[in-house]
Amino acid sequence: MTLKSFVQVQPDSHFPIQNLPYGVFRPESGSTARPGVAIGDYVLDLSEIARDGLFDGPALKGSDCFLQPNLNKFLAMGRPAWKEARATLQKLLAATEPTLRDNATLRQKALVPMEKVEMLLPAVIGDYTDFFASMHHAKNCGLIFRGPQNPINPNWFHLPIAYHGRASSIVISGTDIIRPRGQGHPTANSGPYFGPSLKLDFELEMAAIVGPGNELGRPVDVNEAADHIFGLVLMNDWSARDIQAWEYVPLGPFLGKSFGTTISPWIVTLDALEQFACDAAKQDPAPLPYLTEKISKNYDISLEVEIKPAGHEASCVVTRSNFKHLYWTVTQQLAHHTISGCNLRPGDLLGTGTISGPEPDSYGCLLELTWNGQKPLTLNGTARKFLEDGDEVIFTGFCKVTHYNMFS
Amino acid sequence: MTLKSFVQVQPDSHFPIQNLPYGVFRPESGSTARPGVAIGDYVLDLSEIARDGLFDGPALKGSDCFLQPNLNKFLAMGRPAWKEARATLQKLLAATEPTLRDNATLRQKALVPMEKVEMLLPAVIGDYTDFFASMHHAKNCGLIFRGPQNPINPNWFHLPIAYHGRASSIVISGTDIIRPRGQGHPTANSGPYFGPSLKLDFELEMAAIVGPGNELGRPVDVNEAADHIFGLVLMNDWSARDIQAWEYVPLGPFLGKSFGTTISPWIVTLDALEQFACDAAKQDPAPLPYLTEKISKNYDISLEVEIKPAGHEASCVVTRSNFKHLYWTVTQQLAHHTISGCNLRPGDLLGTGTISGPEPDSYGCLLELTWNGQKPLTLNGTARKFLEDGDEVIFTGFCKVTHYNMFS
Repeated sequence: MTLKSFVQVQPDSHFPIQNLPYGVFRPESGSTARPGVAIGDYVLDLSEIARDGLFDGPALKGSDCFLQPNLNKFLAMGRPAWKEARATLQKLLAATEPTLRDNATLRQKALVPMEKVEMLLPAVIGDYTDFFASMHHAKNCGLIFRGPQNPINPNWFHLPIAYHGRASSIVISGTDIIRPRGQGHPTANSGPYFGPSLKLDFELEMAAIVGPGNELGRPVDVNEAADHIFGLVLMNDWSARDIQAWEYVPLGPFLGKSFGTTISPWIVTLDALEQFACDAAKQDPAPLPYLTEKISKNYDISLEVEIKPAGHEASCVVTRSNFKHLYWTVTQQLAHHTISGCNLRPGDLLGTGTISGPEPDSYGCLLELTWNGQKPLTLNGTARKFLEDGDEVIFTGFCKVTHYNMFS
Repeated sequence: MTLKSFVQVQPDSHFPIQNLPYGVFRPESGSTARPGVAIGDYVLDLSEIARDGLFDGPALKGSDCFLQPNLNKFLAMGRPAWKEARATLQKLLAATEPTLRDNATLRQKALVPMEKVEMLLPAVIGDYTDFFASMHHAKNCGLIFRGPQNPINPNWFHLPIAYHGRASSIVISGTDIIRPRGQGHPTANSGPYFGPSLKLDFELEMAAIVGPGNELGRPVDVNEAADHIFGLVLMNDWSARDIQAWEYVPLGPFLGKSFGTTISPWIVTLDALEQFACDAAKQDPAPLPYLTEKISKNYDISLEVEIKPAGHEASCVVTRSNFKHLYWTVTQQLAHHTISGCNLRPGDLLGTGTISGPEPDSYGCLLELTWNGQKPLTLNGTARKFLEDGDEVIFTGFCKVTHYNMFS
């Protein structure tokens, strides 16, 4: 029997009682930031639930983790607290449970219409790392930038390549991104280009939010890495391809990536994603022992990107990809990150890198979709090589329940 | 006439009243962290000075910036507050000023012997960026890793190349660094090396501590960049050359650099360094307008690295360099960092990159000094290609007063 909530949830909602993603919000402008979970068209205010003493399990009883303006304290508590919170909330929101359902005063305080709230960054992000974990993306970038000889560098198949990103410019979905100025490659007989980026791009990514961290010098075992990951967000790693192409040798991306990185307000927990787990990609060559997982899994998360061109009413889907296309799992990414002894902290963000699938209509950025501007896309009759001022980019991720029980 | 303090300062001390570098300390283990300045063999406790109401200028009167466990609030206040604090402290510590000199109770509380204190990171470092601003270092790395054809990439002369570093693993001087494990290049017919780094190195750097930041999307003009820099620290960007060499293409250094970065406890302010300003390096080609400074200056700061080999009593000087060897100034670095709109925050750290001079005995890391291990150094009769377990690396920076008045 499917668990149902007393809160009405439309069949196509992304926020049934099975999901319960976490975020941080203000019920109204100027009010205090607090944690919440999404349920249908509402946000459940966890500070009110905590104040009412309804988190009564051993991990959360008396804790002030939901009275904080961010999720960091809850993230640091780890999976026992996360599982307990999920069980408490699923029970509290269940159709059969009277505690909240029949308490009009508490419902009034704790269930806030989603359309009224202001969503904020869910955590203080100490450090942000971006991986490069899709083979299709790595291959396409190699073909475009370096040509058909060895488009993927030999190291790529041995380790999850990554770079340190910029934490200060991470913003919540909906924040305007200002087109960066910067340098581009010189043209014949002239100095470098300088001006607004002419190749502004999105990158379809997801990112893991780190739970408990590790001490400096103490790597995390790959088979325990999942206990350090709270959940996943959608992430747009906005990229200025001309700035990136000129600056990135030999120290990697810098200003071409650090003018803004957008994450979704809702963190979908690994616990909620568990029923959508699928086999990870086959890895050849076999990874080194420190990257070898007893159970190596991925998640079947459908991903779509739409662009609403400036001045248009309608948006167009420009790609459909899936989280399961990643070659390196998020647990391998986290274990690799710490193998040197590098310490992670609660709230750290580990981006997957652009999630491109194998087919041209599943590529995760305009660089690949238009092959560096050589094959413009047509959106509602208007052409796009890269993003234009006023374009809106919309990411969607969802998991589809398989109706294996449909005849029962 | 030279300003003198009533606090006795040895002639060879790095902390005369003209310096007054800022740090954060605990007077004894377990006590509250608080800001201080170094004077001779003492730390002046700024929380006590503030509680006594002695910061009485317009910017600092009534402020709780020195009652914080870090300098971030003071950093955010900007140069007017910094200049006022410096003037107040120089007056208070002057030999001719009775306020503190003749107040035994306050002296007892506020002047703590340096040998007793525990020094802490001076600021919460939100983001750490590392530049690559010494031409000699860039050239030597290019020669070692890529050979004599174009050892310096063409972009290097047009922009201050940099990468985002890892903030979580920045530690204060004196903290043990654990040799990282990781992957190195495969050898013939085998997979990648995995194990403890075999090429552990130091990098002689300094780093700017950012004062007031900038809003996302609002670049800082290069001619106003100095107002965003509070001062400089010494920095050792510990590097695992084998891990770095295998992982860094195409996204730059990652685990080869993020297992630990050490900074000095004392921030020497730009105001104190002003008397040691010198002409910046001549730049050819001329930088783009956004990097062109009306007054382009560097600082004449002598830098030395000593290694005390494991089991030895004595340390050996392995290099002598100077901050003035940097090609790109710290103000150009900061302006470039923000030209894309990237936002800086108070406390951010901008490393210069390894500061190598032109001569082999002024190179800033073992990679260069031993030419990637080909020419071992001899230290007290023991050979070193790279660092061995138990070696101690000691950085020293100092400015020498020029005795232009010696005949007067």
